[in-house]
Amino acid sequence: MTKERLYLFDTTLRDGAQTSGIDFSVNEKIVIAELLDRLGVDYAEGGYPGANPTDTEFFSKKRTQKAKFTAFGMTKRAGRSVSNDPGLQQILAAEVDAYCFVAKSWDYHVKVALGCTNEENLEGISETVKAAVATGREAMIDCEHFFDGFKANPEYALACAKTAYDAGARWVVLCDTNGGTLPDEIKGIVGKVQAVVPGDHLGIHTHDDTGHAIANSLAAVDAGVRQIQGTLNGIGERCGNANLITLIPTLLLKSSYADRFALAVTREHLTEITSIAHAFDEILNRSPDRHAPYVGETAFATKAGIHASAILKDPQTYEHVAPETVGNRRRVLVSDQAGKSNLLGELARLGVEVEKTDPRLDRLLADVKQREAEGYAYEAADASFELLARRALGEVPRFFEVNSFRVMVERRFNAVGDLVSMSEAVVKLDIDGEQRMSVAEGNGPVNALDRALRKDLGKYQTAIDGLELIDYKVRILNGGTGAVTRVLIESHDTTTHRRWFTIGVSSNIVDASFQALVDSINYALLKAGAV
Amino acid sequence: MTKERLYLFDTTLRDGAQTSGIDFSVNEKIVIAELLDRLGVDYAEGGYPGANPTDTEFFSKKRTQKAKFTAFGMTKRAGRSVSNDPGLQQILAAEVDAYCFVAKSWDYHVKVALGCTNEENLEGISETVKAAVATGREAMIDCEHFFDGFKANPEYALACAKTAYDAGARWVVLCDTNGGTLPDEIKGIVGKVQAVVPGDHLGIHTHDDTGHAIANSLAAVDAGVRQIQGTLNGIGERCGNANLITLIPTLLLKSSYADRFALAVTREHLTEITSIAHAFDEILNRSPDRHAPYVGETAFATKAGIHASAILKDPQTYEHVAPETVGNRRRVLVSDQAGKSNLLGELARLGVEVEKTDPRLDRLLADVKQREAEGYAYEAADASFELLARRALGEVPRFFEVNSFRVMVERRFNAVGDLVSMSEAVVKLDIDGEQRMSVAEGNGPVNALDRALRKDLGKYQTAIDGLELIDYKVRILNGGTGAVTRVLIESHDTTTHRRWFTIGVSSNIVDASFQALVDSINYALLKAGAV
Repeated sequence: MTKERLYLFDTTLRDGAQTSGIDFSVNEKIVIAELLDRLGVDYAEGGYPGANPTDTEFFSKKRTQKAKFTAFGMTKRAGRSVSNDPGLQQILAAEVDAYCFVAKSWDYHVKVALGCTNEENLEGISETVKAAVATGREAMIDCEHFFDGFKANPEYALACAKTAYDAGARWVVLCDTNGGTLPDEIKGIVGKVQAVVPGDHLGIHTHDDTGHAIANSLAAVDAGVRQIQGTLNGIGERCGNANLITLIPTLLLKSSYADRFALAVTREHLTEITSIAHAFDEILNRSPDRHAPYVGETAFATKAGIHASAILKDPQTYEHVAPETVGNRRRVLVSDQAGKSNLLGELARLGVEVEKTDPRLDRLLADVKQREAEGYAYEAADASFELLARRALGEVPRFFEVNSFRVMVERRFNAVGDLVSMSEAVVKLDIDGEQRMSVAEGNGPVNALDRALRKDLGKYQTAIDGLELIDYKVRILNGGTGAVTRVLIESHDTTTHRRWFTIGVSSNIVDASFQALVDSINYALLKAGAV
Repeated sequence: MTKERLYLFDTTLRDGAQTSGIDFSVNEKIVIAELLDRLGVDYAEGGYPGANPTDTEFFSKKRTQKAKFTAFGMTKRAGRSVSNDPGLQQILAAEVDAYCFVAKSWDYHVKVALGCTNEENLEGISETVKAAVATGREAMIDCEHFFDGFKANPEYALACAKTAYDAGARWVVLCDTNGGTLPDEIKGIVGKVQAVVPGDHLGIHTHDDTGHAIANSLAAVDAGVRQIQGTLNGIGERCGNANLITLIPTLLLKSSYADRFALAVTREHLTEITSIAHAFDEILNRSPDRHAPYVGETAFATKAGIHASAILKDPQTYEHVAPETVGNRRRVLVSDQAGKSNLLGELARLGVEVEKTDPRLDRLLADVKQREAEGYAYEAADASFELLARRALGEVPRFFEVNSFRVMVERRFNAVGDLVSMSEAVVKLDIDGEQRMSVAEGNGPVNALDRALRKDLGKYQTAIDGLELIDYKVRILNGGTGAVTRVLIESHDTTTHRRWFTIGVSSNIVDASFQALVDSINYALLKAGAV
């Protein structure tokens, strides 16, 4: 049976760019466009030429090799001709393979937002599509608020869709702009639209405001739609767009879709999807969602010790898909139940080479169990774990030794009666027999200590130049201010773009922070190949 | 038309506890149980008595007032009688309203994981349910891997479900344990199960491995199921369980469900859901998901300037539900009207009496907004908020004044070559014009400061005799060790059993801790009626 073709339309650089807290530079857009080609999407909507300088510059040349480079814009203003609409002309002039114009399809919006008649809106859609088609490139229309518009005035919504199709649009995309439509409603309405536009010319664009972005996209496909719009890692306004990283594996691995449809993305491409998702998070400079379907760090991690051996025997009975298919891995967590096979698995994952029979492994395993009982959560601190392992195998040089430190926080009134706080740290180090002593101030005790530690590392100074502390989390285990403190530090190297996590545990928060800081520096030196 | 009753079953404290990186203490479980009662769920699954010390202690008494307190466990071991199964006996003996036993329903798992025959497994289900029912309490069965089990051997899966129902189970819960089943499959299979178990005795338990946890839950409801299992903020193994915080608003606000079903949660409860979701994140000590449906900070925020005025004119045409219904806010303009009614609601909830027209309220509102922008999350710190409010109304005496403090942490080698850490704090106080100065040591800087603060409060000493610090959470806002620190302290009075939360924010962790500690002491004195 021949499979039908499903098309993927990525709007990371347009709708995704409207995410609160996200602003792409031209350079970032270029890098993301390359990522989209690596992923294998059919269309990459690059932005809105003319709307802002970044987008205008981005569209000065074609930025994709494989995906159809697409420009977004609005349909012709009412009361003007196509040639007399400079905004539209600017879009038509862009170096693209396709255009995607957003149009009103809810009569109420036509009145309130456009201030023109229903007929003028239809004319705008028709004229815009015709002008786009006349360039020889593909044209599509995003029918904004389509589902709410259909519920309010079905005839008009259908008229908008039909007008776009009749004018020659390759795709008429039905947008759940508010994100409030539910799957059965999507199915029912898409069914009705097929009276005026065939399914192979229909697209779906959803948002996650009720947690149904994925389900709505697939419901629309079930109802006949053949283009799905979404973003990388589901970024987008409010609660985000449909997450292509979640959709693609489902379409390729679940038989109810894989048997019926073919994508441009192949099973070989799919093994890169975890890497692509993480690379995108790096560009956004944010921690990956550890629980993301398919690609999340814990997507295939099981804590319940019961399953561990059973899973390794027959993964299919405990995992819905094999993690290797999406380039992810099974993570049986280094937990209280940690056995040797778990440990070997983790070491292999971190690239630590060791013989299964190496006697030092038993010692390391006992050490890990002991420390985990004390509060070290190594599943959250790969770098500390790797240091611990490599030290057990004699692979970590003694870069420096901290002989002592002192941290002071003082709050008092100054001479003019203002309440001031000050933090100061003094650190005494030994580097190759040479004593060094540094003092630093900071915003707080840990900041002061961090600065003092990194102020003068002698011959190692350049190796930690790019070192940046990104995040710092503290948890108190067993309650109260006298209990055990666990500190997790996330570090980043601005030159290598490497990101790592280290941990410290102590009843003293400054001590715990100190451990995590020292581990971070040692890890940076180890990875820099410092000698 | 009478609405059918839908039941909500929360498994945050059981399935949620299996989340990678999450470990609840007994104390945290107690606080979360109170949160669940505030939310209004029907069942709260507290954990697995006998499986670990925390859960065993948690089940030493009933921990909910409204929700049915439920114990989890496994069905009877094959080859033993109910009375001879100590694990099962321990569960049956717990102080609960209901039991939820997980049972195998996939014949392959019966063979590989249990190592018994299919019939023995059915007998285990039957005997367990009967024993539970005999206690007079509710019994339910979680049919593990039900959907995969049904696909592999439908007759056996149905036999498991039927056996549980025939033995008297109140609920037979169909679990998509792998998280890989899709909505149409859920619907189809649930339909078949109704041949042996009526829908009003069926439950659904989903996971988010394909992004369908919500859609699968609702698909099951559409197919006849009447209990939904989920967790707060969707925590849970791998990619998480169905998020009750996302489900509840949809069930109450979308007509396709609201017209057909009634929950124990009312529209009034619903206005607290944003606050509850954020409070839970605070307990987990993690950043809230800003993009979460309904309750996320950006759930109703629009960046596209186009909409701003149109939204305010007629929000219904741009928002799928009104943010106030879920206690969230539209973030387009800072609306004074919306802010003030929120504030009055909060004050009423805390028992602070004030006239709506009191002019001091505007000043308090501005103060709260300013502080929240700085990082004070008052929804997680009622006591600090109450102090702030009552101070604005002139109701809080000046019990004591801290003139200055100094905290020192030192780590060095002692005379015999051991590495030691010591922390010391000195505090200077003013009580009714009388100067007092105290010094104390501690396990860390905050512990030392806490002890020094409480060492000598003069005439107020007895009022804080029962004061105990239970928990202490730190979060860094905006990353790195130089950023803003937020400290949340949970305090407890052993004499009154009152429990309260206070907050401090500063770039200096010791300063932030100090604020929260001082608030805690002032709150204790206020509530003790100290003069």
